[in-house]
Amino acid sequence: MFKAGIAGASGYTGYELIKLIHRHPQLEIGWLTGESSAGQFYNEIYPVNWHYPLITLDEALTRVTEVDVVFLCLPHSASMNAVKRFYDTGVMVIDLSADFRLDNAVIYKRWYNEEHTAPDLLQKAVYGLCEVNRAQLPGSKLIAVPGCYPTSINLGLYPLAKAGWLGDRIIADSKSGVSGAGRKAKLEYHFVEANENISPYNVGHRHRHIAEMEKILNAANGKAHNYRILFSPHLLPVNRGILSTIYVEVEEGVSEAQVWDLYAESYANEPFIHLLPLGKAAALSHTVNSNRCAIGIIPADPAQPNGREYIITVSLDNLVKGASGQALQCFNIAAGLDEKSGLI
Amino acid sequence: MFKAGIAGASGYTGYELIKLIHRHPQLEIGWLTGESSAGQFYNEIYPVNWHYPLITLDEALTRVTEVDVVFLCLPHSASMNAVKRFYDTGVMVIDLSADFRLDNAVIYKRWYNEEHTAPDLLQKAVYGLCEVNRAQLPGSKLIAVPGCYPTSINLGLYPLAKAGWLGDRIIADSKSGVSGAGRKAKLEYHFVEANENISPYNVGHRHRHIAEMEKILNAANGKAHNYRILFSPHLLPVNRGILSTIYVEVEEGVSEAQVWDLYAESYANEPFIHLLPLGKAAALSHTVNSNRCAIGIIPADPAQPNGREYIITVSLDNLVKGASGQALQCFNIAAGLDEKSGLI
Amino acid sequence: MFKAGIAGASGYTGYELIKLIHRHPQLEIGWLTGESSAGQFYNEIYPVNWHYPLITLDEALTRVTEVDVVFLCLPHSASMNAVKRFYDTGVMVIDLSADFRLDNAVIYKRWYNEEHTAPDLLQKAVYGLCEVNRAQLPGSKLIAVPGCYPTSINLGLYPLAKAGWLGDRIIADSKSGVSGAGRKAKLEYHFVEANENISPYNVGHRHRHIAEMEKILNAANGKAHNYRILFSPHLLPVNRGILSTIYVEVEEGVSEAQVWDLYAESYANEPFIHLLPLGKAAALSHTVNSNRCAIGIIPADPAQPNGREYIITVSLDNLVKGASGQALQCFNIAAGLDEKSGLI
Amino acid sequence: MFKAGIAGASGYTGYELIKLIHRHPQLEIGWLTGESSAGQFYNEIYPVNWHYPLITLDEALTRVTEVDVVFLCLPHSASMNAVKRFYDTGVMVIDLSADFRLDNAVIYKRWYNEEHTAPDLLQKAVYGLCEVNRAQLPGSKLIAVPGCYPTSINLGLYPLAKAGWLGDRIIADSKSGVSGAGRKAKLEYHFVEANENISPYNVGHRHRHIAEMEKILNAANGKAHNYRILFSPHLLPVNRGILSTIYVEVEEGVSEAQVWDLYAESYANEPFIHLLPLGKAAALSHTVNSNRCAIGIIPADPAQPNGREYIITVSLDNLVKGASGQALQCFNIAAGLDEKSGLI
Repeated sequence: MFKAGIAGASGYTGYELIKLIHRHPQLEIGWLTGESSAGQFYNEIYPVNWHYPLITLDEALTRVTEVDVVFLCLPHSASMNAVKRFYDTGVMVIDLSADFRLDNAVIYKRWYNEEHTAPDLLQKAVYGLCEVNRAQLPGSKLIAVPGCYPTSINLGLYPLAKAGWLGDRIIADSKSGVSGAGRKAKLEYHFVEANENISPYNVGHRHRHIAEMEKILNAANGKAHNYRILFSPHLLPVNRGILSTIYVEVEEGVSEAQVWDLYAESYANEPFIHLLPLGKAAALSHTVNSNRCAIGIIPADPAQPNGREYIITVSLDNLVKGASGQALQCFNIAAGLDEKSGLI
Repeated sequence: MFKAGIAGASGYTGYELIKLIHRHPQLEIGWLTGESSAGQFYNEIYPVNWHYPLITLDEALTRVTEVDVVFLCLPHSASMNAVKRFYDTGVMVIDLSADFRLDNAVIYKRWYNEEHTAPDLLQKAVYGLCEVNRAQLPGSKLIAVPGCYPTSINLGLYPLAKAGWLGDRIIADSKSGVSGAGRKAKLEYHFVEANENISPYNVGHRHRHIAEMEKILNAANGKAHNYRILFSPHLLPVNRGILSTIYVEVEEGVSEAQVWDLYAESYANEPFIHLLPLGKAAALSHTVNSNRCAIGIIPADPAQPNGREYIITVSLDNLVKGASGQALQCFNIAAGLDEKSGLI
Repeated sequence: MFKAGIAGASGYTGYELIKLIHRHPQLEIGWLTGESSAGQFYNEIYPVNWHYPLITLDEALTRVTEVDVVFLCLPHSASMNAVKRFYDTGVMVIDLSADFRLDNAVIYKRWYNEEHTAPDLLQKAVYGLCEVNRAQLPGSKLIAVPGCYPTSINLGLYPLAKAGWLGDRIIADSKSGVSGAGRKAKLEYHFVEANENISPYNVGHRHRHIAEMEKILNAANGKAHNYRILFSPHLLPVNRGILSTIYVEVEEGVSEAQVWDLYAESYANEPFIHLLPLGKAAALSHTVNSNRCAIGIIPADPAQPNGREYIITVSLDNLVKGASGQALQCFNIAAGLDEKSGLI
Repeated sequence: MFKAGIAGASGYTGYELIKLIHRHPQLEIGWLTGESSAGQFYNEIYPVNWHYPLITLDEALTRVTEVDVVFLCLPHSASMNAVKRFYDTGVMVIDLSADFRLDNAVIYKRWYNEEHTAPDLLQKAVYGLCEVNRAQLPGSKLIAVPGCYPTSINLGLYPLAKAGWLGDRIIADSKSGVSGAGRKAKLEYHFVEANENISPYNVGHRHRHIAEMEKILNAANGKAHNYRILFSPHLLPVNRGILSTIYVEVEEGVSEAQVWDLYAESYANEPFIHLLPLGKAAALSHTVNSNRCAIGIIPADPAQPNGREYIITVSLDNLVKGASGQALQCFNIAAGLDEKSGLI
């Protein structure tokens, strides 16, 4: 039996991770941290009957030998130091923040406008997009779990990018449930403000999540690429789930059947990719409360068969495949367990 | 053309009141106050194109002669002083808070656990439940607009109480949309916490709103009464609306037809009461976004005709008939206008 | 490994049951029936990647030896004959309909207004309210899974009824998510009709589910009892979950601490009962997507300690503890497995 | 006082239109038709206290002289004949269906795959996009009210198209509330299917609504144009409202300020256009329950000032500005009344 420590367990991703671990036959909770709720029990901060005490990060570090893996569910920038402290103890570290997802400190600063305080670890971190980086995960001691939005875009476009069939201009219109914004009391996430509403935010070419998309897509194919991604996230009145509607052009001369087959082959053995029949769109309901990622490939113009324009629709649960489920999937692979453990 | 000042215009009831006044052919906005948003324009705090400046309460007092009526949409206890200051200028004051709804300072303190700072005004205030107190409204200078929950209970039970047919034990199971909690960034009103949920709160015999129910029902009939009201509010995952499901017993020997006729007569000329056919339940959809109050009278046991148990279902929009609509209805009556102006 | 057949797998309870079975380490899907969808695959009727074929009931009967247990998720009255046919083959039958929940055909006809076509089986069926009837489940060949509403009322009141402390008059104001109404295209369940709404339906003393409440509560205590239950269901704008707010009186002289202790003892070893601290209310969020049942005990009048009036709040997920989860829990007990298998 | 007849009053647009007419000081209801609900009263089909009888279309034709205008809220293709019959009586006809929105019968057939049975009227119909065609409305006897989606796209792009600054490739990612699908009991609009979900449908270059977009945009500027519009509608879990996120390129050399000024000038005197400050996105909350259309203009790349890519966000209420409100606005203009009557 493996034991997991969770740092920052009081947010929605921490809550989800505990639920998933409860279903995992070989993993159980070691300790949980929560700076502002330390001293309380988990059932005091969530409507559950889980009597875990919440401790501080400092205390958790003194108890690091009790666990086999530490999952960090802290906000970006707050995570850096904590990751370093845990990493230095030798324990396996799986970080759900954005802090170790990019390749180097310069790029990090460009997008996050902050100095990285553990730049030496950036090269050691494996980007935990399992379907792409599975081979690098076994034995790794620092895994950066991808962001929820980038996971949807990257899984939706990787086969095309790898094949060299993906056109440079990409428009991703994404819609996310409110849990993606975290468990923070802010007016814009007040029920009355978000319900019966949908609102775009931070749209354009400068959303931080674009960095992860460029990282994966530009490197997918041997040749140098420079995809230009226009990314428009929207706040959707649902608790959870992301739908990305992605507008792309494919290489001239490639047929619809070839595109679909490419995806079918690329993801043939992937337990969590649900490739829909050609022309069928993915919806949130395909994936909510599961670790699945559903992909629907739609040629844009039925009157123009084998045209270049496609609409790629991708759905996943932002708290599962977009965060805690993917983190657990990474752990399963890294630890040599069945990749699906706890994720069915 | 009359002009209205609104103090505390930045909350949901203020927002709703402005919308209604825009539809009123004889009333228009004079000024709006908002302490923390003073200096901003209304379109900066709500998604509208209304370019009204927000001023402070102090400034509004210097401009009180510009308006014919001041509506106060301030929180209870904060309202007392403001009401007194406006009242002393001689302007008509319509207070939407709880501060002038009860009969005297002792009762106020018992329920609100606070000293009343303008006790002399309590006797001058008319309780603006139009269907009950219409006669007292014309010419009044201080009107206390009833609370949203009590309006639903009182309109639902008043005919029975007045007829002396209402049994002493009353159980009111009420469900309210989240706007009833105000525009405050608190975790319990976060979309993810309130959505796909329903939660009872402050249930039992001690909710403050019971005071208004007792006030109206105990005095409905010439004889002394002492109704014992068990009141259970629930937070409902909708933006607006209250549904009260009220369990009562009626006098022995009174038939179902007599009960329904009693309501039909009592409310025969009421433009905003929607009495449903006997046995039909009220739903939120009967009243949301309107100033209507729907009442459905359901005998509890079809196998026992003319039994004593009834379920009275009452629905209204907490922001309209439960607050700003009723306030405007009060104004219309007090000012001698068509009671329905701005409320269709 | 056990194998399960599911008859009527195309409804919401069938869908949920498959999800739960996927998580069960010792149970897997044998076959699925769906009369109107026979010939299709499961991924054609639900947004999942489960490629199970749907067959007819007749075909399933010819393949009954392939499975160890048959779960029937058919509508009431349609289930009777199917249950009899499967029962006669000797396979373990777990029926989620209402058809075998009552004690005899006379009572059945009184509430359902229909002749029972398999009256001899009524006495053979065990009512699968696990927390009450656990001892009768091992080895049983016909289990009637309780209804969702009655489960909430019965688990909420059983300890009081068994102790003989429960007053005769009971008012249960229940709120249920729309999945409780089934996967049927009817106007009242259209999104626009149900969303931003709440509506009472079939309120009073004659809802069919009262029969199950009377059956359990009247028999809880050695002495004869005749509880009079007023039951008011409401359609709630959420996908899943039931909240029952139950108004009761307890025996004179029993203290609040005694009441709470009674529940704590009664449910001390129950893995799925979540008893909340005294005075705290249950909300849907305590139980949605789990097999838990949360119970909150609230004395009605804080100013009158140890008074007789209580508000018992009970929450459960109608598709899990109120249907498929409880069915699986029954199976686990009947088959001698860990009761929690597949239900964490 | 004018009188209105409404044909097809039992759908959501009919319901909304009655609400708006009730607020109109110079218009009142004459008669209402509903083929399948003829013989009933309006309060039997909607939760309102409006006691209008519903009659058949045939009866309405015999009573056409009682009204000054007939609004048709029938489904497309069913509307053609009815429009012709009313038009031939000489009464003013305002058709909310798609049947008279296109220029000729050939184009109609191409998109709707059906013969037009009143092709001679197509040239007589004025396309009632008030902000564009206001001058043609006074005195017209047949007005085709634009579709909800096209209204959002056309109002969002018209100034650019007219100025000749709009690039040929347009991607419109639109999200609509469920009322847009009509009051039909279909499984996909069941609460449980649509809630906590979002799903794309009919995406690409062949959605019928594209015809209206091409009609308006291609003709906006003197020169011939052939915009290529990729349109992706999504079913959004809200009752009402459309948000269109439109991706366009503008003419090289045109600055952000010029773009915004163009809109500001184009819509300077429009009472229902709410132009947001440059860079601010429109949300549903800007317009729900109003006749407003909010437009937010966002340059795609803040790091590249005065770049060519823009995201135009447009929000409106599909039942008001997208249907019944716009129909009433058309009537007001056609009849020479204040354009805003009934629409505040």
